[in-house]
Amino acid sequence: MPIATPDEPLTERQLVLTRVIRASPDKLFRAWTDPTLLVEWFTPAPWKTVRAEVDPRPGGSVCVVMQSPEGREFLNPGVYLEVVENKKLVFTDAFVKAWEPSNKPFMVGTLTFDDLGDGTTRYSARLQHWSVADRKAHEEMGFHQGWGKATDQLEALVTRP
Amino acid sequence: MPIATPDEPLTERQLVLTRVIRASPDKLFRAWTDPTLLVEWFTPAPWKTVRAEVDPRPGGSVCVVMQSPEGREFLNPGVYLEVVENKKLVFTDAFVKAWEPSNKPFMVGTLTFDDLGDGTTRYSARLQHWSVADRKAHEEMGFHQGWGKATDQLEALVTRP
Repeated sequence: MPIATPDEPLTERQLVLTRVIRASPDKLFRAWTDPTLLVEWFTPAPWKTVRAEVDPRPGGSVCVVMQSPEGREFLNPGVYLEVVENKKLVFTDAFVKAWEPSNKPFMVGTLTFDDLGDGTTRYSARLQHWSVADRKAHEEMGFHQGWGKATDQLEALVTRP
Repeated sequence: MPIATPDEPLTERQLVLTRVIRASPDKLFRAWTDPTLLVEWFTPAPWKTVRAEVDPRPGGSVCVVMQSPEGREFLNPGVYLEVVENKKLVFTDAFVKAWEPSNKPFMVGTLTFDDLGDGTTRYSARLQHWSVADRKAHEEMGFHQGWGKATDQLEALVTRP
């Protein structure tokens, strides 16, 4: 039985980014699940996303490879937990593949793509962590600026004529 | 990006119990997924399993309520990750429901039920932890004796004439 830990409210363990984007939900969904598109927008410069492997189905693997300005590569493996085409994507780094526990369960990402019916989509990224400490660490790593810039790049890609 | 942690080999993070049982896979699968059966065998005395709620599908919740000899109740919530009827069940306490991170991701349990074709089933429970420390803690909590006794009770239930 797990050792009891003091409860940390979920609201203090999550980070949220929401934006209304002038594109259809399927374009945003594709930008997240087509590796050739994903590498274009995923990383704020001067970092790069050099390649990505995705298998968007429950239990499917995802691996995004980022490159630092110094040329070092960082693998970010994870697994999809839920996939609803053009509507929702849930993934986590708690598993390196179905269902092998990773060395550090850090977060669950839930993306939703809500069609607002006027050619725009409410895009929401909710990142939930296993601890308040990890949520704070994620903020200190530059979550708001990093995801903000990446989302600018995502928006530029999906609204490109 | 997650903070890098030294890799701990999966083999040192897992506990395994395997037993050949004189019953068909569907009986074992049912003993794990029918709450009225689950409460009969799940807990080694003097502990009791007083109730269980199960929703065996990917993302479905599971909650087993145990009672200590002193009458205190302990909730064990989790989520199913994979369900293959009569063949395989994967669950974890890393989520309290789909896909809300729990306060302490402790383990992933993978149960397999292999039909050996002679009226027996190779029953295997593989418990994989996020850290070597948690695997050790699980052993110190009495994994081998506890799961051994619970499996005796499971075997008695499914082989009952």
